[in-house]
Amino acid sequence: MNYKMIGRFIGRILLVEGIFMLPALLISVCGQEWIAVKGFCLGIIITLLAAVLLLVLSKGYKKKFYAKEGLVCVGISWIVMSLLGCLPFYFSGAIPHFIDALFEMVSGFTTTGATILADVESLPRGILYWRSFSHWLGGMGVLVFLLAISSANEGNSGFTMHLLRAESPGPNVGKLVPQMKKTAGLLYGMYILLTLLNIVFLLIGKMPFFDAICTAFGTAGTGGFGVRNDSIMSYSPYLQNVCTVFMLLFGVNFGCYYWLIMRQFRSLFKDEELRLYLGVVVGSVALIAWNLKGFYGTMGETLRHAAFQVASIVTTTGFSTADFDLWPSFSKTILLLLMIIGACAGSTGGGFKCGRILLMFKSLRRSVQKVVHPQKVQVVRVNGHMVDEKILQNTNAYLAAYVIIVMASFLIISLDNFSLMTNFSAVLACFNNIGPGLEAVGPVCNFSMFSCLSKLILIVDMLAGRLEIFPILIFFSRTTWKHR
Amino acid sequence: MNYKMIGRFIGRILLVEGIFMLPALLISVCGQEWIAVKGFCLGIIITLLAAVLLLVLSKGYKKKFYAKEGLVCVGISWIVMSLLGCLPFYFSGAIPHFIDALFEMVSGFTTTGATILADVESLPRGILYWRSFSHWLGGMGVLVFLLAISSANEGNSGFTMHLLRAESPGPNVGKLVPQMKKTAGLLYGMYILLTLLNIVFLLIGKMPFFDAICTAFGTAGTGGFGVRNDSIMSYSPYLQNVCTVFMLLFGVNFGCYYWLIMRQFRSLFKDEELRLYLGVVVGSVALIAWNLKGFYGTMGETLRHAAFQVASIVTTTGFSTADFDLWPSFSKTILLLLMIIGACAGSTGGGFKCGRILLMFKSLRRSVQKVVHPQKVQVVRVNGHMVDEKILQNTNAYLAAYVIIVMASFLIISLDNFSLMTNFSAVLACFNNIGPGLEAVGPVCNFSMFSCLSKLILIVDMLAGRLEIFPILIFFSRTTWKHR
Repeated sequence: MNYKMIGRFIGRILLVEGIFMLPALLISVCGQEWIAVKGFCLGIIITLLAAVLLLVLSKGYKKKFYAKEGLVCVGISWIVMSLLGCLPFYFSGAIPHFIDALFEMVSGFTTTGATILADVESLPRGILYWRSFSHWLGGMGVLVFLLAISSANEGNSGFTMHLLRAESPGPNVGKLVPQMKKTAGLLYGMYILLTLLNIVFLLIGKMPFFDAICTAFGTAGTGGFGVRNDSIMSYSPYLQNVCTVFMLLFGVNFGCYYWLIMRQFRSLFKDEELRLYLGVVVGSVALIAWNLKGFYGTMGETLRHAAFQVASIVTTTGFSTADFDLWPSFSKTILLLLMIIGACAGSTGGGFKCGRILLMFKSLRRSVQKVVHPQKVQVVRVNGHMVDEKILQNTNAYLAAYVIIVMASFLIISLDNFSLMTNFSAVLACFNNIGPGLEAVGPVCNFSMFSCLSKLILIVDMLAGRLEIFPILIFFSRTTWKHR
Repeated sequence: MNYKMIGRFIGRILLVEGIFMLPALLISVCGQEWIAVKGFCLGIIITLLAAVLLLVLSKGYKKKFYAKEGLVCVGISWIVMSLLGCLPFYFSGAIPHFIDALFEMVSGFTTTGATILADVESLPRGILYWRSFSHWLGGMGVLVFLLAISSANEGNSGFTMHLLRAESPGPNVGKLVPQMKKTAGLLYGMYILLTLLNIVFLLIGKMPFFDAICTAFGTAGTGGFGVRNDSIMSYSPYLQNVCTVFMLLFGVNFGCYYWLIMRQFRSLFKDEELRLYLGVVVGSVALIAWNLKGFYGTMGETLRHAAFQVASIVTTTGFSTADFDLWPSFSKTILLLLMIIGACAGSTGGGFKCGRILLMFKSLRRSVQKVVHPQKVQVVRVNGHMVDEKILQNTNAYLAAYVIIVMASFLIISLDNFSLMTNFSAVLACFNNIGPGLEAVGPVCNFSMFSCLSKLILIVDMLAGRLEIFPILIFFSRTTWKHR
């Protein structure tokens, strides 16, 4: 294990994190929120000190770097970023318990949006800004992380789809780094552009400037932290619809936007994952609207709430305009299944991902056909291209890991003796990076009632879900820490 | 598709079924239960007529037979057996609605034990006997079916473990049939012997003769239909403990008994599936007993109820001595997870099976290690033997099919608007062939409140779970019905 290299990497990230806290400090100073100023000052100082310490200690690092070190690096950096990022919450007294502050920060960086706060409107603006900004930062981090893994370590970490399928760098390692830098640049560009567009559309609907920025951050990262206690409920229907559209846009594979820019419309329309994603959204909205008949005054209102909640859950954002916990069972079941399905691969959304669902179905169909014709050789195709057996295997391994982690977490947090559906949906909401669940963790409730142990489990779930399980799993594997 | 051959096969099975109804008729005559006599007379006449008709129509059948025809045969025969087997329930008026009668019969043959009856004590004895006997018959059918598939079509239908690993017949087709007949004979022998032992131990505890026979049938098939409204609650602690032990014994892979007979104790003690199964049982009992502290009067009583319920659920029998729906969340969650885990492969129990869980964990561990050391070739071993990659693939396909079917069923039955945990546990209880679930389908409730659509879905779930999914899945595959 190349510890110096890892230290260097973490040090740089912390440097960036410390700098990114400055705008929040500025907002706090402008708003004369002195407790928040104290929190950010302490947070920035400690973060930068840690960064400098790591950079000094890691002098003379070697550049030799294996896949496992990359994954360990990613895992550690998310944990360390959260540990230091939550300091302003803690030192400002906005969240008095450290474990709660950590939960909130992990929920921010992993773009989950699950909160332990009942009353966010009473918080200083600097704190609110930092909370929402963590979503935006997390979303960007995820995009780059996905890119790095899918190109450098193709198909090896349970990834099923290339982030930018058109740009897949191939086996030539020499070309890899510049190609990746270019792609990452393009990605950042699109992410920033879409966020700006979102802010503009929100401002057109007369949302206050601060709210617009924070809401756009929450939407872009598919996070879900809001600045009002009732999430998006009290905004106008226009603003709610803007959120619906942008949530759905951020749930699309960013590779599709690349095609759009390149004017490859044929590829775009024929993309099977995109079709599945849109099909799931339209189908769910239609079924829920039918099931909710008579629940709201008009058909328009029903459709608006159905579309918003579906978009919010399938993209794993977690905003809400209605308390869907009061909806009939059929609608709730659809939302629960959408929690599992999730957004497209290569987006900021979480969940099992539409791409994997597609592969799972195709691979299952092949298994059935194999029973009927044992001799026939059959391949799985997506978008006309043959899918490597290794990727299919990894999809299945991912499903197995997914089921095992959800079940184990479900068991441990049931020690708190809340209802089974509360526990089950809490685990799904955290692991799939959604935010609200059902019953006691429904959209008008929060996660503060859980014990410290349960909160720690949910923190691990959020991280594991966000990092596609394997970077967290290898922490627990002996071979990772063995010397060769 | 060789329809004549399939007709011949079904005809023979119906002949056997008709004959097996005779003892129930005899019991009804002796008990002077004339409505039951009428039901059985009509049932037997129709079943035998159908059998004769099929045998006449299928004259001159060809012996050429493919794997897909075998699977279609199995699927059809369970459906037809249930359709005709439920006639006595229906014609006797014991269950006035046909769909309810069918549900009860499918639940019997698939050894599920889910019932739509609230008051079984008011039923004629002939009907009760036929209900319980269907468990025993179903259990035997499953053992032979498992054997047939695992030898004839090795690894092809999602099977992961040989039923009789020591006896695996190998690729020599000439030797296959006599070897299989011998093994099937041995299997029947052990099944009958264990059932008789169970009856003897129940009689020693002064259980009435009729109750003892029916309870033993329900235990042997890991079914769960009882002859009392409160299942096993009102029997003595000794009798409850006898049930606990025999349920656990019937959940063991029958291959283990073969080793026992052959005095291969080393193989027995080193069997990883058996170890996992016993570990799960002991661990669950200990955790539940700890969680239930103070719930019952004494430690002994707590342990007895914990052990009984764990044995009943993990072997997918479904008897109960306590209303576990009132237990704390942690205990309920353990039971819910045990519902999924299930018994050993090659037993009469249902569920995902300990053998598959073992393979899933091992295969997942390999995936994690592959991330760390991408170049290293790693194989999965069970009991020291290398597991074929095909079998690992099929285990994963099985998991995918399992998740998809459970989710789809969960969605459809939620249309009835019962609570989510009722629906979820009802699907798990049927698909894993257990019987009782939680909340509105808990151990003191029944399935009668569901709509016809939901009952049909649950019927399909019971069949799919019992037949290890694939024989039911291929019904829905176009390739099955295409001519070559």
